[in-house]
Amino acid sequence: MQYSTKILNTPSSFIRNILKVTGEADVISFAGGLPNPISFPTEQLQQAVNRSIEEQGTKLFQYSTTQGYEPLRELIAAKYKKFGLDIHKDDVLITTGSQQALELLGKVLINPGDGVVMEAPGYLGAIQAFTLAEPEFFSITLEEDGLDVEELAATLAANPHIKMIYTVPNFHNPTGITYSREKRQAIYDVVKNYDVILVEDDPYGELRFRGESLPYMGGGRLENSVLLGSFSKTVTPGMRIGWFVTKNKELMGYMETAKQATDLHTNIFSQYVIHDYLSHNAYEEHVEKIISLYREQADCMIAAMEKYFPDTVKFTKPEGGMFIWVTLEEGVSALQLFDQAMEQKVAFVPGDPFYTNAENINTLRLNYTNSTPEVIEEGIRRLGALLHQTSAVKA
Amino acid sequence: MQYSTKILNTPSSFIRNILKVTGEADVISFAGGLPNPISFPTEQLQQAVNRSIEEQGTKLFQYSTTQGYEPLRELIAAKYKKFGLDIHKDDVLITTGSQQALELLGKVLINPGDGVVMEAPGYLGAIQAFTLAEPEFFSITLEEDGLDVEELAATLAANPHIKMIYTVPNFHNPTGITYSREKRQAIYDVVKNYDVILVEDDPYGELRFRGESLPYMGGGRLENSVLLGSFSKTVTPGMRIGWFVTKNKELMGYMETAKQATDLHTNIFSQYVIHDYLSHNAYEEHVEKIISLYREQADCMIAAMEKYFPDTVKFTKPEGGMFIWVTLEEGVSALQLFDQAMEQKVAFVPGDPFYTNAENINTLRLNYTNSTPEVIEEGIRRLGALLHQTSAVKA
Repeated sequence: MQYSTKILNTPSSFIRNILKVTGEADVISFAGGLPNPISFPTEQLQQAVNRSIEEQGTKLFQYSTTQGYEPLRELIAAKYKKFGLDIHKDDVLITTGSQQALELLGKVLINPGDGVVMEAPGYLGAIQAFTLAEPEFFSITLEEDGLDVEELAATLAANPHIKMIYTVPNFHNPTGITYSREKRQAIYDVVKNYDVILVEDDPYGELRFRGESLPYMGGGRLENSVLLGSFSKTVTPGMRIGWFVTKNKELMGYMETAKQATDLHTNIFSQYVIHDYLSHNAYEEHVEKIISLYREQADCMIAAMEKYFPDTVKFTKPEGGMFIWVTLEEGVSALQLFDQAMEQKVAFVPGDPFYTNAENINTLRLNYTNSTPEVIEEGIRRLGALLHQTSAVKA
Repeated sequence: MQYSTKILNTPSSFIRNILKVTGEADVISFAGGLPNPISFPTEQLQQAVNRSIEEQGTKLFQYSTTQGYEPLRELIAAKYKKFGLDIHKDDVLITTGSQQALELLGKVLINPGDGVVMEAPGYLGAIQAFTLAEPEFFSITLEEDGLDVEELAATLAANPHIKMIYTVPNFHNPTGITYSREKRQAIYDVVKNYDVILVEDDPYGELRFRGESLPYMGGGRLENSVLLGSFSKTVTPGMRIGWFVTKNKELMGYMETAKQATDLHTNIFSQYVIHDYLSHNAYEEHVEKIISLYREQADCMIAAMEKYFPDTVKFTKPEGGMFIWVTLEEGVSALQLFDQAMEQKVAFVPGDPFYTNAENINTLRLNYTNSTPEVIEEGIRRLGALLHQTSAVKA
């Protein structure tokens, strides 16, 4: 059997492939991107299930509409008011996790060879999803305050076949950085001159534990603005409820057709449950609890890195979200370090899969949300010892 | 914005588009393909939810594996024992409804221009899903006992670029027919000579209310056999739990990568709930109740058609499933009849969207599972009156 070129070219997820080793009981794993399960509102979700079944009966179990449960779309639209955005329920499409929105975007926009701008490094799930549409990727350097604007401007100017720019502006995956207010404006000023879709994927935006909330780049002012969101990091990832927002009606129409052909509609049982949960609970207070938890974990990891890592190793200090990005000394392979670290029963994700075009790179991603402070300290201590060895060998 | 050629060529679902008119309260709708909501085991599913949360806790709410919940895959694998098939849990991939399996198959197998054999008429959701992969469709006549074998053999012989044959062998959608034992063997004898994937999509197979259960065509004996199944017609469609089965490890690997890129994994909450439901309830007895219900509804519709329809109108007599296929007099447009019927507040699906290459055809699909016997009688009476008028005009 000859398989399609698109699947032959699609990488399987490095993270999901290493889950078998990193998931063993005695391994300290900073590799996954899992929310802390103590943050799940289990009891309230159970109440929401029972109330929904009692109030809505068989509607939870029947086929439903492709666009998604209308009252849930209304609640999601209302979330954007705090950013001054006037989003209507019909600007919202419920997706099977926001991962699905990425895959649908690739399908709807990209002919083989069309251009897609990616952050370098960028979210590996987006690389994977877009690869299925066989684009030409343009990697733009991600600086500590967002995309390199000059590089972006030059790339857009030289490549009229670019259809889409993909960004994670808040507490970026994998680096943890946040686009500055100035960078957001500068990117808008460049992008507004082109007929391209600007995607702002924002699964972590509500999890800010430091600094001020910043406006979207394209949301509310670019015709081709796309905003993505998810309940995976704030309520539950297991129910796979994400969403896609655009005011471009034509794009929305094609996204809906693509969604229909892909899985008819998103699990309606879970849509009712999430809607009921949001309607009967103090969501903001719940999110505040997650923020406190993650702030403590992030601070703990940063303190441990300052204590145990050699000065030559650099790392980001996120204002929210779930990740820290580590840059090793020039020439050190994070992939090689991964093997050594696994011998010490500590896991992380080497940088390679976050680039469309790099190998044996000297960067890596650490997740802090799924370990206790004690475990974080111990894991970083072990990594630090390895890094001091590496440093000594080089010196 | 220039959208992708694949989305520009993908039809949006005729059925989903007419839902707005056919869904109005005073319309008798034979248009949808909805299971009867009285068949949903609502109370038992609610118990399953509560038991699952109490026993498994946060595992229901966390990210999970792409392949699907292992105990659920085991239960699904075991279902095939009654057909003498030795399916292992690792031969099963849980999908977001079986619709997703179709879309993933297109993605994994089809390069633009590769051939896909479709039944004519065939399932419109499959036409839609495969269209996204830009194949060349080969429509093979569907006879009352299955695909026209000579046409299939000639088509396969003449077109080495055919990658996949898509079939619904039991209580076919849209026609309600079932492939005969002889046809199944004859199709196997042809297909075994080619390196093609034979898909047997079987969402209705358990809903047999007449006749004997028949073996799969390729399952258990073709290396490239694919079986699809779903809990949508027997437990609940709202939770979107379907599955994909193959013993071809290479194909399974690519399907898993495609699934990963598409939505990471299927709703794990619902997988736990369905597994718990199946483990604590008499599933076979539950299915027997659905069968009794649908048998009565089918018999009622057939009796009404014999009473009210002109003799010139032909229709199938299904042995199970959810649909009856009606063939009007030569030259009568079912699309035109649809408009007239909607004036009489009766809805059905005209045949056109079930073909890759036909327009204004004289066939239509009726669903009987979602109306009471009284409503079925009244709806068929109204349609019959219209058909007698059409007949009189032609005479």
